[in-house]
Amino acid sequence: MSAIRYEHIKTCKQTGARLGIVHTPHGSFETPAFMPVGTMATVKTMSPEDLMELNAGIILSNTYHLWLRPGHDIIKEAGGLHKFMNWDKPILTDSGGFQVFSLSKFRDIKEEGVHFKNHINGDKLFLSPEKAMEIQNALGSDIMMAFDECPPYPAEEKYMRDSVERTSRWAERCIAAHERPSDQGLFGIVQGGEYEALRKQSAKDLVSLDFPGYAVGGLSVGEPKDVMNRVLEFTTPWLPADKPRYLMGVGSPDSLIDGAIRGIDMFDCVLPTRIARNGTLMTSEGRLVVKNAKYARDFGPLDPNCECHVCKNYSRAYIRHLIKCEETFGIRLTTYHNLHFLINLMGQVRQAIKEDRLGDFREEFFEQYGFNQPNAKNF
Amino acid sequence: MSAIRYEHIKTCKQTGARLGIVHTPHGSFETPAFMPVGTMATVKTMSPEDLMELNAGIILSNTYHLWLRPGHDIIKEAGGLHKFMNWDKPILTDSGGFQVFSLSKFRDIKEEGVHFKNHINGDKLFLSPEKAMEIQNALGSDIMMAFDECPPYPAEEKYMRDSVERTSRWAERCIAAHERPSDQGLFGIVQGGEYEALRKQSAKDLVSLDFPGYAVGGLSVGEPKDVMNRVLEFTTPWLPADKPRYLMGVGSPDSLIDGAIRGIDMFDCVLPTRIARNGTLMTSEGRLVVKNAKYARDFGPLDPNCECHVCKNYSRAYIRHLIKCEETFGIRLTTYHNLHFLINLMGQVRQAIKEDRLGDFREEFFEQYGFNQPNAKNF
Ligand SMILES: [Zn+2]
Ligand SMILES: [Zn+2]
Repeated sequence: MSAIRYEHIKTCKQTGARLGIVHTPHGSFETPAFMPVGTMATVKTMSPEDLMELNAGIILSNTYHLWLRPGHDIIKEAGGLHKFMNWDKPILTDSGGFQVFSLSKFRDIKEEGVHFKNHINGDKLFLSPEKAMEIQNALGSDIMMAFDECPPYPAEEKYMRDSVERTSRWAERCIAAHERPSDQGLFGIVQGGEYEALRKQSAKDLVSLDFPGYAVGGLSVGEPKDVMNRVLEFTTPWLPADKPRYLMGVGSPDSLIDGAIRGIDMFDCVLPTRIARNGTLMTSEGRLVVKNAKYARDFGPLDPNCECHVCKNYSRAYIRHLIKCEETFGIRLTTYHNLHFLINLMGQVRQAIKEDRLGDFREEFFEQYGFNQPNAKNF
Repeated sequence: MSAIRYEHIKTCKQTGARLGIVHTPHGSFETPAFMPVGTMATVKTMSPEDLMELNAGIILSNTYHLWLRPGHDIIKEAGGLHKFMNWDKPILTDSGGFQVFSLSKFRDIKEEGVHFKNHINGDKLFLSPEKAMEIQNALGSDIMMAFDECPPYPAEEKYMRDSVERTSRWAERCIAAHERPSDQGLFGIVQGGEYEALRKQSAKDLVSLDFPGYAVGGLSVGEPKDVMNRVLEFTTPWLPADKPRYLMGVGSPDSLIDGAIRGIDMFDCVLPTRIARNGTLMTSEGRLVVKNAKYARDFGPLDPNCECHVCKNYSRAYIRHLIKCEETFGIRLTTYHNLHFLINLMGQVRQAIKEDRLGDFREEFFEQYGFNQPNAKNF
């Protein structure tokens, strides 16, 4: 039996968005869900207790980074990633494929895998489907990702076709190399760029391998938002309704809503935590840069409509002061609020699906956030 | 009536150490007590909830730093430092005198005050008794410190005598300038370096001004430990038994115990938080540098004898990993443990005073910590 099971609750009559529950060996989480990213086995500045308080149902961690530091062997010896980082709820790990693409300047993609250089010290490294499985098996994540090739955007159709076909072959090798299928569910990753035929081919290839879940990869890599939406529209129909669907690397509020409307169940992104470190907030009234001088004497909360612990107890003036002084507690507060914002947003999305009104919710949210204004500032 | 009241509970028959309670407008704390330092209106990486959980009875914040950033006017407008930083328990602020001495290379000490340069941008600044009171009145701390001159160590007797006399004159001006004596208790600071006659003179001058509490300043500035102990021995007898006594800038475990034995009630130091940021821990078995390679696969707690949240949930291997990767959550964990260590140590000291066995406790603690070894590593 697969380690991962998707329970479909209902479909929004207004939009087709899916309400569901993903069951894992470390408990279940409701979908659509946003997954905070804990690259180095920690969601930057947050404790596991903070994440529990934030009601994070699942977090993501990065195979490539943990392979380099501290090394997957150490995490295995610790009893796995859950024990190592003191987080007993679900964890998803990526495959390292994206980091090979995004962090390494020198990479040589061969059929056997990718030769590239360590982004920290320049050492030669090699990642392959088998190695990515070995590492993730050692980490013991609930959801593992297949090792894929992440092509650049834009890419020629010929390049993309070769890449999709290789990713399918690698997917088969991942399944063969995966040693703990009853403890860890392996998801396939649909690639194909903006090419409808290639997305279809990739989806069909992977679905024939019967993964317990599927990701849509190669998006949020610089393409316009309408391209992302269009790709989702012609990709998700090829994915089975009884398996969870994960849109990789997406975390702006508008894209989470638009992704859910196109049948996506899971999202992850460093966006809320990364912008928090620079003093930038997601609020119900739009983007707020709390470092700005105009907040020096603003004793109101980051977001007047937010119920989070930070907004109930701390002012913009205080948080601005901390961030100006490079006090990490300031980043802890902005990170907490931003994660609360997205996790709470997904709760609202789920509620709207329940009520068959996600389209209406989208309109209301976009209006209040300011996305409908021509010069709306996104992230 | 004074804002600060010292309630003496008992004196240790074995050592003369004092057990007491200091009552402030924001509640009471038991003494001897260690006060965590929150320079910029935050104890680095800690939330107020963390500090509550750690059972911190009082924290310290720095007048000089808050004057520069965000400015005492902003904190006053926020409703005072307690509201600004979301801490409803006692706060002590220093006077800025020590920062003038330690942070500024160019300073010109005159009778009216000290001209010096901003350590951040080099701007010309001026601090005086009146200015130090104005800032601290704006901050609204429960315990304020008089503006004193902090002479270097070592200093000639002539220099020290002039300095002590000036500090006494400044103390009078502080009292005259203090505008909120019923909300905030102002402590005098005894100076005099290692000169017994000058310490006595300074203490007598200040005691005649009837402060609600007294600090011993000018120690922990580079002098040998036996000099500090000797100075305390000939200084504290001149201080009134019914007022709290605060030894400034002291935070190593041995010095806390030895200070309590010499009649000190309050201590503060950046030591536990500063060394935590470098991955150095205080443990019941001595100093531990968790960054060291030998802890890479050590899945035990920082301190096997510690009951803190960190030691119950995280391993040396995990914390080492975080600190090696410059993850601030690692520093949050080491800071938490070090503060727990000192706050818990003071609880043990109070218990030993209750039982008239602080001398025995000192011996046991020093033995286990390794202070009795010839090459004992302190901080
Ligand atoms: Zn909030
Ligand atoms: Zn501990």
